Amino acid sequence: MIYDAVIVGKGPAGITCAIYLKRYGYNVLVIGKDGGALEGASLIENYYGIKQISGKDLVKFGIEQAISLGIEVLTDEVINIDKEVNFKVTTARGLYEGKTLVLACGTSRNRYPLADKYEGVSYCATCDGFFYRKKRIALIGNSLYMLHELEVLANMCKDITVFTDGLELEVKLPEGVKVVSDKIINVDGDTHIKAIVTKSGRYEIDGCFIARGKASGFTLAKHLGLGLSDNALRVDDKLMTNISGLFACGDVTGGLLQVSKAVGEGANCAKSISDYLKNK
Amino acid sequence: MIYDAVIVGKGPAGITCAIYLKRYGYNVLVIGKDGGALEGASLIENYYGIKQISGKDLVKFGIEQAISLGIEVLTDEVINIDKEVNFKVTTARGLYEGKTLVLACGTSRNRYPLADKYEGVSYCATCDGFFYRKKRIALIGNSLYMLHELEVLANMCKDITVFTDGLELEVKLPEGVKVVSDKIINVDGDTHIKAIVTKSGRYEIDGCFIARGKASGFTLAKHLGLGLSDNALRVDDKLMTNISGLFACGDVTGGLLQVSKAVGEGANCAKSISDYLKNK
Repeated sequence: MIYDAVIVGKGPAGITCAIYLKRYGYNVLVIGKDGGALEGASLIENYYGIKQISGKDLVKFGIEQAISLGIEVLTDEVINIDKEVNFKVTTARGLYEGKTLVLACGTSRNRYPLADKYEGVSYCATCDGFFYRKKRIALIGNSLYMLHELEVLANMCKDITVFTDGLELEVKLPEGVKVVSDKIINVDGDTHIKAIVTKSGRYEIDGCFIARGKASGFTLAKHLGLGLSDNALRVDDKLMTNISGLFACGDVTGGLLQVSKAVGEGANCAKSISDYLKNK
Repeated sequence: MIYDAVIVGKGPAGITCAIYLKRYGYNVLVIGKDGGALEGASLIENYYGIKQISGKDLVKFGIEQAISLGIEVLTDEVINIDKEVNFKVTTARGLYEGKTLVLACGTSRNRYPLADKYEGVSYCATCDGFFYRKKRIALIGNSLYMLHELEVLANMCKDITVFTDGLELEVKLPEGVKVVSDKIINVDGDTHIKAIVTKSGRYEIDGCFIARGKASGFTLAKHLGLGLSDNALRVDDKLMTNISGLFACGDVTGGLLQVSKAVGEGANCAKSISDYLKNK
């Protein structure tokens, strides 16, 4: 089945966009791993019409509301996005296809500030793996998402060390991949990254890939070559990115990181998608 | 007292803007005659976080929410807006002053389609009265707002007839003003309006001013020379109109006439006003 829209993110922007699209008569799929940053908000008092609510409850109500309108909401982890004729979204458990794609996946939350200041640090194996073909590479992460990045890197790079940063490996690595499983104490370098220091020792490297935790749709979007500014996705006044048919709404577009702004963009985004699908 | 912001409109856009400004630490006044178009919605199912609610209840909850945060919400009718150093808002019962002004007053709902197709029809005495100095003028309306328009016209025009369109006059007219109080059956003209036809007869005119019902902030805004496009206020990406310090949000800016879009703009508008006041 090809959906009219696959929406990545089940917070206020994604769910609002889904509700509007559903009511316009489109078939939509929402995929999200959690409710994002909103779930951490203990008390919200500035959302119109609801005097006080916890972020956790608001996320829960929103998802229930979508389901009650007949919308499919999947709890799953997106690990890759590709564009062929349609958008193909790979999750931990399946593959989904949409004529349009909406990134409503919140702000990037798997940055690694310790390394961020150096050159030679990347959040996208597909984008940058090529530059490190004959180099020593560190890959930081312990999850399925890390494994996906590793598979991409392994096609290009021969000397890869996985650093789990003290966490247990959640996946089985291919044979021959080196693993350092104790905590990272420091990242060393001049302007360019040079070494990763753990309790067990110092590891000289030429480049470092970050794939900590789960992939944010944001990180995945970089694989597609989406324009960024100030660490947010660049969108036009229709909330479309520089890739035709790929839209974004909510925190991921930057600006005010608020439920109000997210639902406003969710509704506007749905209208834009409807116009886009009609003109296609 | 000079408010940091006077907000015209107590629907979702105005109230959201007020809540954000209040929490940013500004003193705000909300003035609205009613909850606008939203109050007519019998069932809303597409507002994130609330499964089902009537428009009337949503408006009521929103106002209560604002009041509970210490925001002043006035139920009053705005009949004029002026800009000197600050914005001066005249209502039926008072005069209020704000460093900034927000129009969150919904779509124009006092249009008169019967006349709209002709030239020589105006919704703004201050803007267009001058063009009819020695002409025969019809003024359609029966309310305080009509009286305000009449006073403006009376300074420029000598031959004015008020048409109440079958409604009872809510105000006392100055002596010497002609009144036709039966229902309007037709409006006649070629490209330019030529006559108003009621049950009692045909009245030849050169121009017609519409001041039916209560003034929408939208109509009032025209007095200030605000830019329009497609019958909506033109705003920039900060939601500011072409007049510095005068902002707009919600249905009045056009686009999607939805609660979601209104609260999104309300929040963004508050942020813009805060930036504006800081840089002033």
